[in-house]
Parts: sequence; structure tokens; C-alpha cells
Amino acid sequence: MRMLDDRDPQALSVLRVLFSHTGRAQVIGITGNPGSGKSTLTSRLIAHYRAQGSKVGVVAVDPSSPYSGGAILGDRIRMMDHASDPGVFIRSLATRGALGGLSRATNDVVHVLDAMGHDVVLVETVGVGQDEIDIVRTADTTVVVLVPGLGDDIQAIKAGILEIADVFAVNKADLDGAERTVGDLRGLQMLLTRMPPWLPPIVRTVAARGEGVAELADRIADHSAFLQASPAATERRVARARFVVTSLVRETVGDAAERWLHDSAAGQQVLADVVARRTDPFAAAEAALAATAARG
Amino acid sequence: MRMLDDRDPQALSVLRVLFSHTGRAQVIGITGNPGSGKSTLTSRLIAHYRAQGSKVGVVAVDPSSPYSGGAILGDRIRMMDHASDPGVFIRSLATRGALGGLSRATNDVVHVLDAMGHDVVLVETVGVGQDEIDIVRTADTTVVVLVPGLGDDIQAIKAGILEIADVFAVNKADLDGAERTVGDLRGLQMLLTRMPPWLPPIVRTVAARGEGVAELADRIADHSAFLQASPAATERRVARARFVVTSLVRETVGDAAERWLHDSAAGQQVLADVVARRTDPFAAAEAALAATAARG
Repeated sequence: MRMLDDRDPQALSVLRVLFSHTGRAQVIGITGNPGSGKSTLTSRLIAHYRAQGSKVGVVAVDPSSPYSGGAILGDRIRMMDHASDPGVFIRSLATRGALGGLSRATNDVVHVLDAMGHDVVLVETVGVGQDEIDIVRTADTTVVVLVPGLGDDIQAIKAGILEIADVFAVNKADLDGAERTVGDLRGLQMLLTRMPPWLPPIVRTVAARGEGVAELADRIADHSAFLQASPAATERRVARARFVVTSLVRETVGDAAERWLHDSAAGQQVLADVVARRTDPFAAAEAALAATAARG
Repeated sequence: MRMLDDRDPQALSVLRVLFSHTGRAQVIGITGNPGSGKSTLTSRLIAHYRAQGSKVGVVAVDPSSPYSGGAILGDRIRMMDHASDPGVFIRSLATRGALGGLSRATNDVVHVLDAMGHDVVLVETVGVGQDEIDIVRTADTTVVVLVPGLGDDIQAIKAGILEIADVFAVNKADLDGAERTVGDLRGLQMLLTRMPPWLPPIVRTVAARGEGVAELADRIADHSAFLQASPAATERRVARARFVVTSLVRETVGDAAERWLHDSAAGQQVLADVVARRTDPFAAAEAALAATAARG
């Protein structure tokens, strides 16, 4: 397939070699709304794993802001506590772009950090939207961070978030309403899950003071041990590989079609025909597919 | 291309015929965080356009919840005020699924409502994540709804949201901090935009009491008039067509690859090889592409 080679060929060959050295790191996704304190919690987890002698890689993803790591996101600055520690590697990703581009880029960086020999790779992302859900889907264990009294309580606990959580952290657990949030969460778990092999534990944390971080790390380790012992581990790895491969297919073919529509005279004509309703988007998609496949 | 025919052929042929009847409706995107009151605002806009004699279609999108329109989303219930009005057609979409599936589904429904002769189509969506940004990208005019004192103020005003807004509504403008939110927004506009042909106006609304709704509709009409008179209108339609066609390509090719990886013995073998690091995701993507293209 010529299309896959449209990427920078040198970067591609590096990634392909790298991939054979991956699969050793424990990949932990940490997701939550803005203001949930997930960056502080991530920073505390870094310190925890470093104290155990682990090499830690961090990927901080903020798809909607070009300022990640800069002045506008104060929370991120706290993570820079670790910036001078050679055992910690932090990479911010903020590229918004083609559909699926961000989750692919995240996955590439996770592979690089894994191949570099990091024992733990933390992937921190805002917990809303398909792109973010896709990102945490590539993690071994996903921590969903909630805070007491966030907006409309139960409404804020999105069903999608429930599905992806392996461990819940109710952060800022010293605030009023923490027990209600824990209770709501348990209620929703009872409502929606039917005797799962793994019931996500709920850990109370106060990240700003480091409280509950050791317990959170223990519950993450529990989940990791559960995965090792269960056929779910293999299923999860296969599902993850399927997701990664499918995303690559979508992206490469989609990007090639987009370039053809944008850059070629024939593509521009097809789009003009769609705008004028002389043709429909389905016929146009067929034309784009035929043109980009023929190019190879 | 055989792959495009993998969709229900009858639905496909209906959509293709429908498409030639589209392009007449004014499509208005309304986006904002949970709790911003955008559903109430949408409901008020419906009443406003109905009072002018317009037929109104509504697409309410909530990708992370299977409960849209149900009991859990109290806001949505208010929209049901209009459920018995034959001049209003409301459709909820909550399907999470393949990457890009939701924005494609939304686009299909917008086309159907357009072809049915609705003068105005309102598309209401949660304002975070790539999927949602892609959805509002298909609108003629996008209203971004903000509320005073939402979390970390400037942090909450994501740059991505700034980019997609044609009109801002600062809702719940009777709350403390409304003027600060308006001021922050203007400051950010000055910072990020360099003399644009259209500077998004900021309208103060109190949707619960219907205040500012007429002005909001006026500013939406201003943007519509601006688009008609400007070469930007054509550019926008071409960009939208390119997005729709590219999404179709991504989705059809990606879905075919995903099915092959999931269902065929050869596909399952390729995934097992990826998991065991005997092959890499790029080679696997090539194999999936070759297999699904050959099937046609």
C-alpha cells in the first residue's frame, strides 16, 4: 500500500523498529474533567513510582488547547516538579487535527516511551469526547478522576466514563459532598454493571496533600494483577491492537482522500459538484477512494 | 468501491436522493459544557423561530450518554415543550461508536431534516472533544454557550471553542461574574484573533427567563447575512463538503478493516502477530487495507 508510506518514511521505519521493543511498560490512563485535579494526582503518582525506583514516562494530552505545558494551564506546571529528574520523561500533546490523529499520535508516543525502557507510562487526558475515550482505551489500566459536587452529580458521571474506568479516584475528598459522590458512583455501578469479573474500586484522594495516592497505586496494581491472571488480559491486548490498526487504516486512507480533494483539480471539481448538489457525498467518497487507491 | 455499499443499501439510496434536496435549511450549531443551559437556550430559540413561522428541526447529540431524552437529562425534558408542535421535529442521537460515526450520523440527520423542508435546523451538542467540534463544523453558524465562573475561567474557555464560535452566548448572565466572563472572552479574542472579517459577537442571555434570546437570534441572522455576502460562504461550504466526504471515506474503509480484523481468521492472525510483536501495526494496517480492497 503506497498510502502508508505518505508519512515521513524515516519516522515510520523508526516506529516500526521501536514497536518490537514495546509491551513491557505498564500503561496507566488518567482521565477526568478540567478542574478535577488529575494533573496534581498524576504528579503525585509520578513521585510514588519514582520512590519505588521505576522509570516513569508521562504523556499529557489536551486536544483543545495549543497551550498545554505553557502558562495558561497552571496545573501542568506542577508536573514540572519532575522535569529535572532524569528518571521521568514528560511529553505534552496538544495537536488537534484530523479525526483520530490525536489518539494515533498518543499511541506513537506511548510506544516510544515503552521502548525507551520506562516501567510505567502515565497518559493524562481530559475525560470527555470520543477522542479521549479512544486514547484511554489503549491503556492497561484507566483511572477516572471525579470530584465531589461536580455540576449535576449523577449527570456528570457519564455512562461512557463508567465503561472505561478500571479504578475511580474521588479527588478533593475533603470537600463537602465527597461521600455523596462515592455513594452515587456505587449506586450507578450497581445499576449498570452485572457482576463483572472486576468491579472498579473507588479510592478517596486529596491529591494536593498527597492523601490516598499510595492506596490508588495499590488498586492500580491490583487491577494489573487481575489482568495478568485473567483471559481478559489477552482480549484487551487484541482489542487494543485492533483499535490501533484500524485507526491507522482510517487515518492514512482519510488523509490521502483529504489531500486529493484539497490539492487536485479533479478533487476540487468533485467538491464543487457536491456543493452544487450535482453529485452526492457518497459518490464523491467513491471517487476519492478510487483516485487515491489508483495513485499507488 | 464495494465498501461503500456495505451500509444498508436502501438507507444509502434514500440518503443519496435526499441529498439533492438539501442546502436550503439554515443549520445552527449550539454547543457548550454540561450545565451551561444550552438545552434551555435551544428550547427558547425553537420558540423564537416558531413565532416567526419557521419550521424547525432539532438534533440533540450526547455522545457519552445512552440516556439522552430520557429521565436522567432533565434539561432535555424542557425541550419536550415543543414535542406536540407539528412544526418542530426533534431527534436525539446518543450512539457512541466507531470513530467519526457520530458526526456522520448527525450529518445524515441534518440532511434529512433539511430535505424535509425545515427552515432552521438546530444541532445541540456538548462542547468538548474532537467529535463535537467536527459536528458543529458542519453548521452554517455555531453558537458557543458559556456561563459565568465556570471552573477556571480562562482555562475553561478552550482555544478550540474560540475557533469554532461564530456567536458567543454568555448564559445565566444574571449570575455574579458574568461581566468578568464577557471581559475574559473579549480579552482572549483580542489576543488570538487578528482583525478577522467576522468578530464573533458576545450576547448575554438568561435562557431560563427567555432574556437575550431575540438578540441572540439577531446576531445569528447577522452572521448568516455576512456569510451570504462574503466569499467565506463558498469556502465554508467547500470545506464542509470536504469534511463530509473525507469522513465517509475514513468510516467506510476503517469499518471494513475493523470487520476483517475481527471476523476473519486471517485478520485474527494478524492481530495475534501484533500482540506477540511478530509484526507491527503499520504492516498490519497494510494487510487489512489489502484484504478489504481485494474483497471488492
